[in-house]
Amino acid sequence: MSQAKFDELKGRLAEIMDLAKTAALLGWDQHVMMPPKGATIRAEQMATVGRIAHTKFTAPEVGRLLDDLRDWGAQQEYDSFEASLIRVVSRDWDKARRVPADLRAEMSRSASLANPVWVEARKNDDFASFLPVLRKNLDLRKQYIDCFEVKDEPYDIVLDDYERDMTTKQVRRIFDYLKEHQAPLVKEVAAQSDEELPTHDFGLVAQKVFEHEVVRAFGFTDDAWRLDPTVHPFASGTGITDIRITTRYFTEHMGGLFGTMHEFGHGLYERQVDDRLERTPLARGVSLGMHESQSRMWENLVGRSLPFWRRFFPRLQELQPELAPYDVEQWYREVNFVQPSLIRVEADEATYNLHIILRFELEQAMLGDEFPLEQLPEEWNRRTYEYLGIDVPNDREGVLQDVHWSGGSIGYFPTYALGNLISAQLWEKINADVPDLESSFEAGEFGPLRDWLREHLHRHGRKFTPGETLERVVGTSEIDPEPYVRYLRGKLADIYGIAATVA
Amino acid sequence: MSQAKFDELKGRLAEIMDLAKTAALLGWDQHVMMPPKGATIRAEQMATVGRIAHTKFTAPEVGRLLDDLRDWGAQQEYDSFEASLIRVVSRDWDKARRVPADLRAEMSRSASLANPVWVEARKNDDFASFLPVLRKNLDLRKQYIDCFEVKDEPYDIVLDDYERDMTTKQVRRIFDYLKEHQAPLVKEVAAQSDEELPTHDFGLVAQKVFEHEVVRAFGFTDDAWRLDPTVHPFASGTGITDIRITTRYFTEHMGGLFGTMHEFGHGLYERQVDDRLERTPLARGVSLGMHESQSRMWENLVGRSLPFWRRFFPRLQELQPELAPYDVEQWYREVNFVQPSLIRVEADEATYNLHIILRFELEQAMLGDEFPLEQLPEEWNRRTYEYLGIDVPNDREGVLQDVHWSGGSIGYFPTYALGNLISAQLWEKINADVPDLESSFEAGEFGPLRDWLREHLHRHGRKFTPGETLERVVGTSEIDPEPYVRYLRGKLADIYGIAATVA
Repeated sequence: MSQAKFDELKGRLAEIMDLAKTAALLGWDQHVMMPPKGATIRAEQMATVGRIAHTKFTAPEVGRLLDDLRDWGAQQEYDSFEASLIRVVSRDWDKARRVPADLRAEMSRSASLANPVWVEARKNDDFASFLPVLRKNLDLRKQYIDCFEVKDEPYDIVLDDYERDMTTKQVRRIFDYLKEHQAPLVKEVAAQSDEELPTHDFGLVAQKVFEHEVVRAFGFTDDAWRLDPTVHPFASGTGITDIRITTRYFTEHMGGLFGTMHEFGHGLYERQVDDRLERTPLARGVSLGMHESQSRMWENLVGRSLPFWRRFFPRLQELQPELAPYDVEQWYREVNFVQPSLIRVEADEATYNLHIILRFELEQAMLGDEFPLEQLPEEWNRRTYEYLGIDVPNDREGVLQDVHWSGGSIGYFPTYALGNLISAQLWEKINADVPDLESSFEAGEFGPLRDWLREHLHRHGRKFTPGETLERVVGTSEIDPEPYVRYLRGKLADIYGIAATVA
Repeated sequence: MSQAKFDELKGRLAEIMDLAKTAALLGWDQHVMMPPKGATIRAEQMATVGRIAHTKFTAPEVGRLLDDLRDWGAQQEYDSFEASLIRVVSRDWDKARRVPADLRAEMSRSASLANPVWVEARKNDDFASFLPVLRKNLDLRKQYIDCFEVKDEPYDIVLDDYERDMTTKQVRRIFDYLKEHQAPLVKEVAAQSDEELPTHDFGLVAQKVFEHEVVRAFGFTDDAWRLDPTVHPFASGTGITDIRITTRYFTEHMGGLFGTMHEFGHGLYERQVDDRLERTPLARGVSLGMHESQSRMWENLVGRSLPFWRRFFPRLQELQPELAPYDVEQWYREVNFVQPSLIRVEADEATYNLHIILRFELEQAMLGDEFPLEQLPEEWNRRTYEYLGIDVPNDREGVLQDVHWSGGSIGYFPTYALGNLISAQLWEKINADVPDLESSFEAGEFGPLRDWLREHLHRHGRKFTPGETLERVVGTSEIDPEPYVRYLRGKLADIYGIAATVA
């Protein structure tokens, strides 16, 4: 009887997940393939698919099935597929029920329509043309918050969508730690070094060849992955066996390569989820922070490590002849160069979190109407000077640089910094479990890392809460900023000769 | 009151069309972009989206709205948007209601799963591995036919899906005319000529450059079109402003280019539908035969004409240096070379319809269980020898060559031949209306042709029946094979020196 109800629930969820993955394809295509004039009708299509998925998920029948199954689920093993599905979906359903289908559809349509406006506004450095769609997205996000009971701060509501159970207060406390301990590192480096970052003229075709060799070594295979260029890179896909990552290319530096590694990390998390979770809401990463820990791990802890480059730098020199005079340590210093800069996605590891703190504070201010939205560029520029010590020459490289607000994503940014912190927590554990991990990179082997991640983290998908998941992997449910600052200080000591420890 | 009901109907249809276009994207992506391991989950996604669209369309509320609106619609001008929508959708609804949603979903799923099986079977020349999925598709198609009342022949039912109102008997009569008047042309040519078709070693990059120049001259623009390679070319898209055509490339000949022109013709039909029909079931070509008349027109009547090549051949010679010794008449003869061959999509204009007649007869035999399905390759090969006088060396170039049966499309093939015939009917009319049409090609101008097609045919979309549409354009509702045979005889007289007329 309960098994039959569970099967019915699973069937309904499978249909909803088909729609969710179809929506993901509509979005991927919009950013990667669609001709520009397709934007208007695409917005309608995304809104329709999203609305139907939402309506089907929030149907009272789903609620009744969940109610009927709650006791049965609680009798199963806590980490069983059945118990986990009922537990996680019950919470999703309670949240989703609070948001009217029309509001969802309006948010989806508004985000789709705003995207091409943002692309144009960024291209033309024209914040004014972006302002109306930003205002619309923000208004809709406020209406969304109003669907929930605010216990402490309104921002808690949007944060919970991306990082379940995390509160604004907790994030603020973690970020305060970073302000205290990470920001000084940047000053120490500045005091040690007045080097300028060299610029290059890297060939694009050779970049594509190289990045493909790298991600193939990491675990990308043509039978289940795609890699395509886009304006603002992201990872997506239609299932565990169809993973799509995107990238972009620069001639002056290798930023595109690190972006590709980053998206590979996201993709691998989805690729290594247990097959059995396919077509259920459990078949994805547990939270955006945990997801970001994976992308930052492959980008920074692997991709900016010396062992990695000992393996791959000779090949890069073959492909980019202007690097012939370099030695690998020089290149390692260059790809770990620390300097406050304007663009978040190109920021180094030492300054990256400062970009996030700025956005975290601005988002709360926007939700709280702390200033007229017309002033957003000024507020952005003022804080950029305050946290990074640099002037913003135009909105293109300032407030218009990120895609998120055009997509209505508010509350998302903090997860990037949380991901950095989690990646270092995981890294200490992995290196304890697999002592010769870094030397395996030097041999071009990434299977041990992939396998560890699948076994301890990826395969579980979304079965547990982010806190439970972290606890299973590293033994504590708390996001702890110390390992990251320790890692960073160690690396900068190595490269810039600052003190490796502080008293 | 009626206006409000009409608006409600339009709203429901808009949602359904969003799903239909989303399904089109799932299909386009499957054939053009998807990594192979995505096939299983994609089949589920396509089945789900198709099932929901079908369920929403066949909802009793839609039927009630149509009933309530029928009198009101009949009071509007016959060719008004409102009257046309109610009239066309009523017939669609009556047909769709007869097919259970589960059968639709099963047909969609089965087709998705069969596609990769067909791709592998064709690659490995292994009909046996394709047989089970073909049998499944065929069984489902029979179940589909059983949902309708067969008035005369079962094949009428599947034919009507692709070519509304056309009966098997009518097609047979037309094809008998072709057997009598077109087949002898091929023999006459054979008696005049024992030339061999030269083979080439055309560069692929230069081919891509050239075909882009050609379709841009035709009317392809980057803001609303895409062109991508695939295994079996087709045209698709997500709306009037997002048209996607596909192609493939050969080194030995220019077949890929003519395929691209062909798909351009399909794409242009969808691109020039009146904007006002967007998000309604009227926003597409009126029938597959009429659609094919457009693709064959651009491929053959434009793309294989001497005026076209007078304009474009010098550029092709620049890009493909091995053509330097040619003159344009020699090239014109070559691209119009007549010789019975194995592959339908590469067949010349004189033999093409014979490939179709073969398939038309085999499809009826399969539906009638006239032989065990295992024997299909033998039956194919026997008829190929009978109609074309050639031996089929393997199933790859025989029964496995076409994608259609893997997709469950039975009844589709005849529309290709009907399209050829319609294209010649239209061509006589266009040339009467625009006397210097062909000389405009020599000037590289295709706007006059595009404009004529938009004004007389494309903009109407599916507002009228195929017969009504044809009557509006050429003055008769009947598909007439004579103009095509007349056109063909004229061209072959020009090239091969056969008699231009018969007594």
